[in-house]
Amino acid sequence: MNKNCSNIMALSTNTSNKRETVCIFGTGDFGRALGHKMIQSGYPVVYGSRSTQISNLIPKDAEVLSHAEAAQKAAIIIIAIQRQHYNFLIPLAEILRGKVLVDISNNLKLNQYPESNAEYLAQLLPGSRVVKAFNTVSAWALQSGTLDASRQVFVCGDDVEAKQMVMNIVRALGLTPLDKGSLLAAQEIENYPLQLFPMWKFPIILSFSLTAFFFFYCLALDVIYTYIYEKNNFSFFIAITIPNRVFPVMALILLALVYLPGIFAAIIQLYRGTKYRRFPDWLDKWMLCRKQLGLIALAFASLHVVFTLVSPMRAFVRWRTSKGIISQALNNKTEPLDNTSAWISDSYLALGILGFFLFVLLGITSLPSVSNNVNWREFRFVQSKLGYLALILCTAHTLVYGGKWFLSPSAYKWYLPNIYILSLVIPCAVLVVKFVLIFPCIDKPLTQIRQGWERNPKHSE
Amino acid sequence: MNKNCSNIMALSTNTSNKRETVCIFGTGDFGRALGHKMIQSGYPVVYGSRSTQISNLIPKDAEVLSHAEAAQKAAIIIIAIQRQHYNFLIPLAEILRGKVLVDISNNLKLNQYPESNAEYLAQLLPGSRVVKAFNTVSAWALQSGTLDASRQVFVCGDDVEAKQMVMNIVRALGLTPLDKGSLLAAQEIENYPLQLFPMWKFPIILSFSLTAFFFFYCLALDVIYTYIYEKNNFSFFIAITIPNRVFPVMALILLALVYLPGIFAAIIQLYRGTKYRRFPDWLDKWMLCRKQLGLIALAFASLHVVFTLVSPMRAFVRWRTSKGIISQALNNKTEPLDNTSAWISDSYLALGILGFFLFVLLGITSLPSVSNNVNWREFRFVQSKLGYLALILCTAHTLVYGGKWFLSPSAYKWYLPNIYILSLVIPCAVLVVKFVLIFPCIDKPLTQIRQGWERNPKHSE
Amino acid sequence: MNKNCSNIMALSTNTSNKRETVCIFGTGDFGRALGHKMIQSGYPVVYGSRSTQISNLIPKDAEVLSHAEAAQKAAIIIIAIQRQHYNFLIPLAEILRGKVLVDISNNLKLNQYPESNAEYLAQLLPGSRVVKAFNTVSAWALQSGTLDASRQVFVCGDDVEAKQMVMNIVRALGLTPLDKGSLLAAQEIENYPLQLFPMWKFPIILSFSLTAFFFFYCLALDVIYTYIYEKNNFSFFIAITIPNRVFPVMALILLALVYLPGIFAAIIQLYRGTKYRRFPDWLDKWMLCRKQLGLIALAFASLHVVFTLVSPMRAFVRWRTSKGIISQALNNKTEPLDNTSAWISDSYLALGILGFFLFVLLGITSLPSVSNNVNWREFRFVQSKLGYLALILCTAHTLVYGGKWFLSPSAYKWYLPNIYILSLVIPCAVLVVKFVLIFPCIDKPLTQIRQGWERNPKHSE
Repeated sequence: MNKNCSNIMALSTNTSNKRETVCIFGTGDFGRALGHKMIQSGYPVVYGSRSTQISNLIPKDAEVLSHAEAAQKAAIIIIAIQRQHYNFLIPLAEILRGKVLVDISNNLKLNQYPESNAEYLAQLLPGSRVVKAFNTVSAWALQSGTLDASRQVFVCGDDVEAKQMVMNIVRALGLTPLDKGSLLAAQEIENYPLQLFPMWKFPIILSFSLTAFFFFYCLALDVIYTYIYEKNNFSFFIAITIPNRVFPVMALILLALVYLPGIFAAIIQLYRGTKYRRFPDWLDKWMLCRKQLGLIALAFASLHVVFTLVSPMRAFVRWRTSKGIISQALNNKTEPLDNTSAWISDSYLALGILGFFLFVLLGITSLPSVSNNVNWREFRFVQSKLGYLALILCTAHTLVYGGKWFLSPSAYKWYLPNIYILSLVIPCAVLVVKFVLIFPCIDKPLTQIRQGWERNPKHSE
Repeated sequence: MNKNCSNIMALSTNTSNKRETVCIFGTGDFGRALGHKMIQSGYPVVYGSRSTQISNLIPKDAEVLSHAEAAQKAAIIIIAIQRQHYNFLIPLAEILRGKVLVDISNNLKLNQYPESNAEYLAQLLPGSRVVKAFNTVSAWALQSGTLDASRQVFVCGDDVEAKQMVMNIVRALGLTPLDKGSLLAAQEIENYPLQLFPMWKFPIILSFSLTAFFFFYCLALDVIYTYIYEKNNFSFFIAITIPNRVFPVMALILLALVYLPGIFAAIIQLYRGTKYRRFPDWLDKWMLCRKQLGLIALAFASLHVVFTLVSPMRAFVRWRTSKGIISQALNNKTEPLDNTSAWISDSYLALGILGFFLFVLLGITSLPSVSNNVNWREFRFVQSKLGYLALILCTAHTLVYGGKWFLSPSAYKWYLPNIYILSLVIPCAVLVVKFVLIFPCIDKPLTQIRQGWERNPKHSE
Repeated sequence: MNKNCSNIMALSTNTSNKRETVCIFGTGDFGRALGHKMIQSGYPVVYGSRSTQISNLIPKDAEVLSHAEAAQKAAIIIIAIQRQHYNFLIPLAEILRGKVLVDISNNLKLNQYPESNAEYLAQLLPGSRVVKAFNTVSAWALQSGTLDASRQVFVCGDDVEAKQMVMNIVRALGLTPLDKGSLLAAQEIENYPLQLFPMWKFPIILSFSLTAFFFFYCLALDVIYTYIYEKNNFSFFIAITIPNRVFPVMALILLALVYLPGIFAAIIQLYRGTKYRRFPDWLDKWMLCRKQLGLIALAFASLHVVFTLVSPMRAFVRWRTSKGIISQALNNKTEPLDNTSAWISDSYLALGILGFFLFVLLGITSLPSVSNNVNWREFRFVQSKLGYLALILCTAHTLVYGGKWFLSPSAYKWYLPNIYILSLVIPCAVLVVKFVLIFPCIDKPLTQIRQGWERNPKHSE
């Protein structure tokens, strides 16, 4: 197979006269994948390689030359080699002068080196125009054509014209370039593909441990206690009954934890009398993961809704219902409708539904495309006003539902409180303190502090 | 504390050699917040201030100089002062010549001045390059780092290079610049943060008043009437039964109101024989809030679904069910399955579910990120074809469910019609007229008119 | 009415001194609609027309001149005429030299001509700067102001400055320009508005035919068989019972079909020992419509959930329940709770809910705005790991629910298997093969192949 002859012209007849040749240094997996894709899009591709022999894996229509020869054929050179081998480019500095070098490298760890790979490359070759791009795209996705997550290509660089040239190639490959500014952004771009939901780590660990704790708490009280003292085997409660006790508790607690840091922040600001001192670190971190906490709370709430709605279909519930009806029928009497219990049942259902409805609304407004289309005033209105309303409704839902257990002795098996009572501690505390904070005599100085006023200006020194 | 010495170099070692100094005029809250954030991002910051004494609140690592001195140190000057004080910049005109002035001001009312603040600034200082930016970002959000709603910074200006410089700063602060074109866009950008869901005002007022009307209508017929004439206390109907009568009625009426203006528009165009005359103002406004009406209708429909699904869990429903079963058991007989009522119950449930399903589909396609990914033909297909199908299914659902009430005398308490009957008026009217409009003899001239044909060209004069 | 005099100045006082005159060639429907909108936005508009007499339909404040005269008045000329008449522009080549020509044309069929209209225009007038824009916007939407789907205007062109000028106009009209790169992108942009969900065609046809097949299969077994052999008229099963048997089957099969091509791809790569040979065409196409298959599966699953949840409200189910209770009451005994059936009922409900929950999570992450905000590693984690977990949970849900039918003879009416059994074939096959593929002895060579290793390098020649 004659790879050195360029049969590119024949392939991409009506476009090749416009696409400029692109040079790729390095014949590794990503270099080959990118070359394949570029040839498909009508670009003549030239590979720069130490040896021109190992060319089987290289796309058929690409030339393979030495580094120096290949570099001379193109204005844009893609550096598909690893950072530790960048040194070998120094002898080529004269040839690479003025050329656009595209750094596509990634690291194995976050902030592995003091400066980003792209900045390091720019320091090695000060005469070249370095652009960072393509590092978030995977070789596999490029080849298979399934580019759902990675259509966005982050591009940064100090030379505007060079950036434009690279962004045109990105568009031609069917991807969406996103200009991230100067080469200083390279560090952030290089860290990006190494992350796995970094903002979610703490909220997920917290919810897992709380869920596990409440699950075993319920297991002990509802299954084991019943088995020991009442000789009833309710082991099947593990599947639906217990999860449906844990999920609403988790939803309520996590929703309250979304609004708790705001309460702490207000108290700290009131105490210090200034907003110009940093919050403690834990509070800062907590505030930054409020959105994630809220979304996990929404997930628990949704599960609670569905678990509750299926209950009439459960064998256990059907058995309990028919047992109740049969015993009435056998006693030859019909119980009258108890108006109070009708009120309680209907109102906790209605409160729960409305609270969940507002909760879903909060979830929808935190979708990126929706929150980008509202201004800051609208976002605050939804997330703060409607959020507190949701918290009030959900707390009231739990209070009305679980109210009867507060005083009943059967709720204190092994002298432990029912989890309904546990779940209400944080939400009620948040609502009470928030209620105090909106009193004018407290709200006024707080608003002043947030607008920049200081009680004791010396503090900030 | 020595603020005038620049200890910036020490702080941001590896980047400060690249970030250019930024000057901020004004030491108010927003100026300080922006300065803090810029210093964090590695920019040397210089404040221009009347007095260099009130420097406690100013970020520690910033210099404070007189306006003239500060301006000379930087190519970009952020004007963090109010419009009414812009005059004091006129004496500095010579120093500010060629500099990039970033107008970040906001007004207190929509269209407060004849021209935007940024255009006014450009008129005062014709030698400077004015860029509008940052006005949609809040000082509080900048400092706390929770920038969910306001990551987008709208930028406009007549000088492309100046705009690029400002957009690079925006990116460096971790925000997303959005180029809105020339300085003419400043008016729109300044109005943006003052809005609170302007498109939603009319639909929300309409739905609130209609909901209140139907709620009291049902309250009178279902609770008060029953209490007076049948001595039954059904006050708990307020929690679930009545809302679940009002919500579907609202959903159906609002959905029909989404399609009604299109019907009016077609009739007006057919009558006038041209599309080149403006619709009456009320119709124009109505057409522009169809999306909002549809989404509120979807909210009511979702509430109706959940309120319906919880019904087997209601104490009242369980009591009614067991009463029915017990009376059968006590009479020693089992009623056979009534095939007609099985058909009716199953078909209105199925129609409702399918209608709701299409409705949710319409809601999903109106998410900004989804509607941006479909072309006009696809959007029209979904919103028009599928929308009408949803309306047909929901109307049929109501007809099948409420059909039995049309002729029964008990539906006319106090000679008032049941709200099922009221709710069907508009949807049926829309569907009948739409059915007439798709007759070829009417559809053909309408299509011609919409393609630009005129029956009576003199009309448009 | 004097249309040739320019009363534009009077109308748009405070802006007209900045907006530059725009010329529109062609007075057809789209040319007029665009002219209207531009005048509203403050642009002076000049029409170039063969005859200056037919001016009734043209916006009042626009001038109408001959083509040559009109072209001389503006730097930007919008070519609102059809491709087949582009020839008449050749005599004007000298006047059009250096001008920005905006091609807004569309074709009637995909890839109607070998080159795009914009490229054809650029070939005819090599001295002009051709920009493609506005072709995705509809005249109707422009005039009515309801631009939900079409706020995005795709712009492409070889001259960066010309593109900027056009993009500024786009922004001034309240639309969002999207730079698609050089004029080579014009073909794609011209094809865009002709598409009607091209990626959805195959998945929708497949699901329709499968749904129809399973519907009639169930109809035969559940309604017709019962009617013939048991003399029971269960025709109302058509509304809910049968759909609710078909929907879960469809959801499970389609979800399995999402993961099946990945299995095939792995087997093919293992067999060939390389990833550098193209997959068969059918597999490529299948892989590209996995997202659509998954979303349709999600739609079926959602319908299944709601159809199931309404079941306690169905007349048939209520009749069956009360019949069971009454027969127990008449026999004067209460059946004890069967622990096994409580376990089975609770666990298939719980498995189904959790599977559906993960499924919805997959759906949310495939929203464009969400998937743009995750990196490739996160996307793969959700779509692959969580996706397989959803498939496992849903398969287990079906196995636990339908398990009892496998051996019961009543499941084989007319010797045909129950559809539960049919629905499990593909999911179980996928899960079994996937389980084999993650064995280290098979996973290791597969990973190597996917990183670019070749077992038999000669193959790729």
